[in-house]
Amino acid sequence: MTAGKFEIKAYPEMWKDLDMDVERFDKMRLMLGDIYEKTYLSQKNRPSGMAYFDNMIAEIHGGRIKELLAAKKEGKPVIGTFCVYIPEEIVLAAGGVCVGLCGGSQGSVPDAEKILPRNICPMVKSAFGFKAGRICPYFQAVDLVYGETTCDAKKKTWEILDNMVSTYVMEIPQMKKQTDQDMWLAEVKEFKTKVESLAGKEVMLEELNRAVKTMNNKRKALQRINMLRHTNPTPISGKDVLLIEQIAFYDEPVRFTEKVGELCDELEQRIQDGVAVPGKNAARVMVAGVPMALPNWKLHNLVEGAGAVIVNEESCIGTRYYKDLMDEDGEDIETILQNLTRRYMQIDCSCFTPNNERIDQVLKEYRESDAHGIIHYSLQFCHTYNVEEIRIREACEKENIPYMFIESDYSPEDVGQLQTRVEAFLEQISG
Amino acid sequence: MTAGKFEIKAYPEMWKDLDMDVERFDKMRLMLGDIYEKTYLSQKNRPSGMAYFDNMIAEIHGGRIKELLAAKKEGKPVIGTFCVYIPEEIVLAAGGVCVGLCGGSQGSVPDAEKILPRNICPMVKSAFGFKAGRICPYFQAVDLVYGETTCDAKKKTWEILDNMVSTYVMEIPQMKKQTDQDMWLAEVKEFKTKVESLAGKEVMLEELNRAVKTMNNKRKALQRINMLRHTNPTPISGKDVLLIEQIAFYDEPVRFTEKVGELCDELEQRIQDGVAVPGKNAARVMVAGVPMALPNWKLHNLVEGAGAVIVNEESCIGTRYYKDLMDEDGEDIETILQNLTRRYMQIDCSCFTPNNERIDQVLKEYRESDAHGIIHYSLQFCHTYNVEEIRIREACEKENIPYMFIESDYSPEDVGQLQTRVEAFLEQISG
Repeated sequence: MTAGKFEIKAYPEMWKDLDMDVERFDKMRLMLGDIYEKTYLSQKNRPSGMAYFDNMIAEIHGGRIKELLAAKKEGKPVIGTFCVYIPEEIVLAAGGVCVGLCGGSQGSVPDAEKILPRNICPMVKSAFGFKAGRICPYFQAVDLVYGETTCDAKKKTWEILDNMVSTYVMEIPQMKKQTDQDMWLAEVKEFKTKVESLAGKEVMLEELNRAVKTMNNKRKALQRINMLRHTNPTPISGKDVLLIEQIAFYDEPVRFTEKVGELCDELEQRIQDGVAVPGKNAARVMVAGVPMALPNWKLHNLVEGAGAVIVNEESCIGTRYYKDLMDEDGEDIETILQNLTRRYMQIDCSCFTPNNERIDQVLKEYRESDAHGIIHYSLQFCHTYNVEEIRIREACEKENIPYMFIESDYSPEDVGQLQTRVEAFLEQISG
Repeated sequence: MTAGKFEIKAYPEMWKDLDMDVERFDKMRLMLGDIYEKTYLSQKNRPSGMAYFDNMIAEIHGGRIKELLAAKKEGKPVIGTFCVYIPEEIVLAAGGVCVGLCGGSQGSVPDAEKILPRNICPMVKSAFGFKAGRICPYFQAVDLVYGETTCDAKKKTWEILDNMVSTYVMEIPQMKKQTDQDMWLAEVKEFKTKVESLAGKEVMLEELNRAVKTMNNKRKALQRINMLRHTNPTPISGKDVLLIEQIAFYDEPVRFTEKVGELCDELEQRIQDGVAVPGKNAARVMVAGVPMALPNWKLHNLVEGAGAVIVNEESCIGTRYYKDLMDEDGEDIETILQNLTRRYMQIDCSCFTPNNERIDQVLKEYRESDAHGIIHYSLQFCHTYNVEEIRIREACEKENIPYMFIESDYSPEDVGQLQTRVEAFLEQISG
C-alpha cells in the first residue's frame, strides 16, 4: 500500500449501472486518493494493522459497494444512515445492512445550495448534494435512507430528500422522561415493522439476540482501541483512530470487529515494547463535539501536523457511537426491544434538553484519555452543539481544563486561521 | 394621540424596582416612540378604534406592567411566553396571566451575542439579550418563562436562560402520530400541575371551561378582523392588523376581545360606506412564514410604504395563533385537557415533519384573502421555516401564485436591498 501512488479503485461500469455522474465522480475519486495519501500514508511508524483500513478506503467506491449490491440481490434490505440513533440491531437481525452515507465533503455542497438554504449545517448540505449530484455510490445503492429528527436542518431536509430517494424518518425524543421512552419504544417497533416489510420476513428471537451480540462486540472492539490509545505515550495516531471510527459506519460489522481486534493486539504489543507514534512530549488533545464524517480530517490534520496527538473523539463518530452496550440474551422480542430502547436513550446527543449527561461524559473522557486540553469542534450553523458548547466551556473553566472552541465547515478557507489558533492552543497546553 | 409628538410613557421608579437598566432602557423607549410615530401615526385615514391600540403602545412599558405587578401581588402567576404552544387556557383558569416577552428588536442582539452563537435566529438572540441586558420590563416581571422545543435554537437557549430567570420547558412533538398526542397530553397535565403549584390552588372545572370560552372569544375576534380586512378594498392597513396581532400576546384577553370587537364594528361600517385604506388599485400581498415580534414592522413598512397593502399574516403572530378554536363546555377536566391537546396539535408549525397541513393552509389563506401574491418571510438561520419554504414555493409555482422569499434579520442593513426587491415584486403583481 505504501509503495507507489495510492489510488482509490475505479469501477466505472458499476457506477454507470448505479446511475451515477461517472465523469465527475471519477475526478472526486482521484482527489480523495491524493488527500488520503497526503494525510494518512505520510504518517510514520503506523501499525501494520492499518493496512486493512487503507484497503477499505481503496475499495470505498468499489469492493464495499459490490457487497451491498450482492446483499440486495439476495433480497436483503440496505439502509443508508447518518445518525447513531438507527437501531442497527433490528436491521442486522432482518439480514440487512446499514451503511453510513456520504456527507463529509465540500465537493457536493454547491449541489445542495441550489436547493437548500446556504446557512445550514455543511454535513446536511454535503449529504443532500451527494444525492442531488449522483456522486455517492452508497446513496445510489440503498433501498432506503434512515432519517431522524435530531436537528431542525436534517428533520426538514428529509422532506425534500424524499423526492429523490425513499426516506424513512424516526422521531427522536427531545427529553428523557418516561413518556419519551414510551414514544421511542413505539418508534422502534414501527421501524422493526418497516424493516421486516423490506426484508420480506419477520425478525426472529434468535436472530435478534445474535444481532445484539454482533453490535455489542463491535462496540467493545471500539471501546478497546479507544482505551489502548489513551495510553501515554499513545501507540496510534488520532487520525488513524478517527479513520477506524469513520469506517465503522460502512464496513461489515463482524469482519470489522475482527480487524479492529487484530489491530488492538498489535497495539498492546506496541505498548509493551514502548513503541509510540508521536514524540514523547507531544501535547495530547481530546476532541469533543459534532461528528467528523469521512473524509473530514481537517482538525486532526492540523493538530497532528503540529506535532500533537488526538487521544479521544467525544462525538457520534467516536465514543457516542460505542460507549453504551445493551443487555444480551433477551428472553423474548418485547424484552429485547425494551432493552434496546433503554440503550439508545442513553445517547447524550445535544438534541436533548437538558443534556447534563454529556457534560459529565466529556469530563469523564477527558480524565480517562489523559489529555492536556479539549477542543470543542462544531460545524457551522449546528445550533444544538453550538449552544451546548457554552455549558461545556463553563464546565471546563470550572475544572481548569484548557479549552478551545472551533466552529468550522468543509471549505479550506479557514485552514490558515485555524492553524494559527490550534498552534497557540498547543503551545498553551504544552507549557 | 395624533396631536403632538407620540411618546411611550416612562415609569423610571417602577423600572428601578424591577432591577432594570433604567438609563439604557429610557433611550430605547424614546427610539421606539419615534419609530412608532413614523410607522403608525403617519398613516392616513386610520379607523378611530386604533386609538386603544395606540394607547397600548404608549403604556407598553407602564400601564400593562402595573397590571402584571398587581396580579402578582394577589398571588396570581405571571408567565412569559414566546410561542403559540402555551396552553393559555390553563394559565387563565388558574387566575394567571400570559404575556409575550420582548424579542423583536435589534437593540438587544449585541447583549446576546456576548454569550450565544451569532448565527442563530435574531428573535432568540433578541429575547435572550433583553433579559441579559435587563431592558424588558416583562422579562423582569414574570414569575416564569415558558419555553418549548419547537426549534433547536430556542430549545438549547432555555438551558442558558434558566440561569437568569426560571424557565419551564414543554416538549412539543415533532410528528402528529397517536404517540405524539399521548406525549403532549402528558406534557399538558404536567404543565397544569406546575401552574397550579405557582397559583397555590387547583384548577376547577368551571374555571377551565370559562378560560376556554375566553380564549375562543379572543380567537373569534381575531378571526373576524382578519375576515373583514380580506374585503377588497380593505378597510384597514396591514400594519394596523399586525399591531393588533402583536398586542394580542400581551394584553388582557377579555378587554382586548372587546376592543377588537368594537374595531370590527367600525370596519363593517367602513366597508358599507366604501371607506378603504389603500388606493383602489393597491396590490394586495399575503405574508407567510415566521412571526414578526413587536416592534418588527420592517416588511409591512416596506410593502405598505410602496403603496401596496398586506391582507394576511400566515404566521404565529397571525392566523396560526387564532385559526383553531377548541370544544367548549367539557364535562370534566380530563375531557377538556384532551380537547385542548387536540386543538393545540392542529397548529401547523414548521417544527413538524411532514407539515403538509401548512402548505394547504397557506393556499387556503391566499384564496380567502383575495391576495395577488405571497411573500414568504423568514428570519435568518430559522432552519425549519427556511427549508419548509422550498415546499411552499413549489406549491405556489404549481398554483401560479406570484411568490417571493425574503430572509432577513432585525438590522436595518438590508432595507435598501429589500426595498428594491419588494418594489419589483409589487410591480409584477400589479401588472
